[in-house]
Amino acid sequence: MTSPAGLAGPACPMPSAETERVLLGHGSGGQLMTELLTDVITAELGTGEPLEDAAVVGVGGVDTVFTTDGFVVTPRFFPGGDIGSLAVHGTINDLAMRGAIPVALSLAYIIEEGLPIAELRRITRSAAAAAAAAGVEIATGDTKVVGRGAADGLYVTTTGIGLRPEGARPSAAGGRPGDVVVLSGPIGLHGTAILSAREGLGFEAEIASDSRPLHRLVAAMLAAGGTGVHTLRDPTRGGLASALNELASASGTGIEITEADVPVPRPVAAACELLGLDPMHVANEGCLLGLLAPESARDVLRAMRALPEGVDATVIGEVTDGPAGRVSARTLIGSTRIVDVLIGEQLPRIC
Amino acid sequence: MTSPAGLAGPACPMPSAETERVLLGHGSGGQLMTELLTDVITAELGTGEPLEDAAVVGVGGVDTVFTTDGFVVTPRFFPGGDIGSLAVHGTINDLAMRGAIPVALSLAYIIEEGLPIAELRRITRSAAAAAAAAGVEIATGDTKVVGRGAADGLYVTTTGIGLRPEGARPSAAGGRPGDVVVLSGPIGLHGTAILSAREGLGFEAEIASDSRPLHRLVAAMLAAGGTGVHTLRDPTRGGLASALNELASASGTGIEITEADVPVPRPVAAACELLGLDPMHVANEGCLLGLLAPESARDVLRAMRALPEGVDATVIGEVTDGPAGRVSARTLIGSTRIVDVLIGEQLPRIC
Repeated sequence: MTSPAGLAGPACPMPSAETERVLLGHGSGGQLMTELLTDVITAELGTGEPLEDAAVVGVGGVDTVFTTDGFVVTPRFFPGGDIGSLAVHGTINDLAMRGAIPVALSLAYIIEEGLPIAELRRITRSAAAAAAAAGVEIATGDTKVVGRGAADGLYVTTTGIGLRPEGARPSAAGGRPGDVVVLSGPIGLHGTAILSAREGLGFEAEIASDSRPLHRLVAAMLAAGGTGVHTLRDPTRGGLASALNELASASGTGIEITEADVPVPRPVAAACELLGLDPMHVANEGCLLGLLAPESARDVLRAMRALPEGVDATVIGEVTDGPAGRVSARTLIGSTRIVDVLIGEQLPRIC
Repeated sequence: MTSPAGLAGPACPMPSAETERVLLGHGSGGQLMTELLTDVITAELGTGEPLEDAAVVGVGGVDTVFTTDGFVVTPRFFPGGDIGSLAVHGTINDLAMRGAIPVALSLAYIIEEGLPIAELRRITRSAAAAAAAAGVEIATGDTKVVGRGAADGLYVTTTGIGLRPEGARPSAAGGRPGDVVVLSGPIGLHGTAILSAREGLGFEAEIASDSRPLHRLVAAMLAAGGTGVHTLRDPTRGGLASALNELASASGTGIEITEADVPVPRPVAAACELLGLDPMHVANEGCLLGLLAPESARDVLRAMRALPEGVDATVIGEVTDGPAGRVSARTLIGSTRIVDVLIGEQLPRIC
């Protein structure tokens, strides 16, 4: 669109609904992604709100937890895992964040012509090993092949079914003022491991992805804390900052964390410094956030620390009465800063 | 590898396990695909046999049917549907072939940067409409974005959960000698519609995909025939020929069909003639094969013909006592020919 001659037009063309296109940032887990999900996908699906990472569906009288996740990580092999194990862990963890024990997974491949069969074999073996270690069955699958140039090697979509034990109903909206915010382990490992492997930054020896299943940790937390476990969330795409903001918004509360209490491994801090990243925005695949009733926090923390995947569990802040949706951090120098979500894309294709 | 001088080597290099790569034909639904599934995927998953299109999983004491399917069709819009409605129908039909009523679907997108948002909106609306028309909920989803050149617009992976009514246990291995082979409608429409739209062959006005949900047809068949409905199969990738061969192999029987009784619409026959295709190898998305106990066939056929999606249901052959896995066709000139599966790829990216 050009402005008629003689009239002052906008300096740059405004995007219109007809010409808008999907951007990489729409996949970031940040603000743009929320807009795409809300304005386009859930609007057209006719659901009132963005689809949950995992939904609860009544199947023959049984509350079944159901989740799906596409994996497009590049490179496909990285320190600490590969696209196969990552897909299995990611889907197990989406189930676990609703308090569910995984029962069965499906595995759908979209393969680019030319992928070495040895690589497909290795990835499939890795997915099978991850599922076996987590005690869950890969029950069904699908394989499609597209021509050269029509995909980037291999995409994996895993879907999971799980069951919730009686009484366990953690939800994104469950946080209440006074709740204790716990984090099960250090942040930033997965995103920096991927970036280092992709770009050859040389951190590969020091940083490995934290990709692992968290359902046993969740089961231990629920056994110790029961209904005092208000909320569980794994801070994947968009990192800790996005996860905290989503939880504050969903529950209509504020969250205040203490920066110095957030565990950032030294090599992650170094990599982030080099790259100009904020570790709070970097993806994780093996830790979780919990919002806990204050009277349950001690027992839940003790139960977490008894497991390898929760040995570094720590309190990082508390839930406040607002402003609703506001996340703030007490900094090392004693001031308070707002913790924002990413607007666009910081690290594409980290999962 | 070159042969040492003076020794006679093979005329062309033999493929080795180290250098083999995935070919387009591995996605065809034919022989190469069976090999990839058996030798690589199920071998590494440690399951004894190829994963079923739909698995039955015990979830909290309820037999839940679980299936997943990736859709990479190009073009994304075609006469009779689009990638969104096709994905919903395809997954509903995989559930239906196990006798299940669909309960919930998930929808996972892998989007190439640059896809027009209007197109994403239109496809999502189409998926939602297809689900609503079939009476099934899209309960959860996922969206990933990859860079330009890393995918071909949009891939959709749908996963479904369904429930089987009491008593209904159709299976691929259920066929018995003497069973009646029924086909619910004409073949070849989906594959030729896609090919015509893709290549601009000019059949678009005459041929539309048969994409549609078949769960109501299945429910009517089971209500009329009960346990006399031994086997159901939708002849998608690989067409009628592959489906018949799979059923004969799975049940250790032979199948003999009468060529003249297989309904091939005139425009499909013309398109196949032009392109050198066998309609028996062309994909379908809206018809099904049934193997029926002879005493049930009449009632089941009557129930099928009472529904729009089964109005053209017809008997095309019978199950014989072998040789096991052999499918043959009585031809128009009175001879008998073997009906083979495709070896490689005839029509890539038709679903």
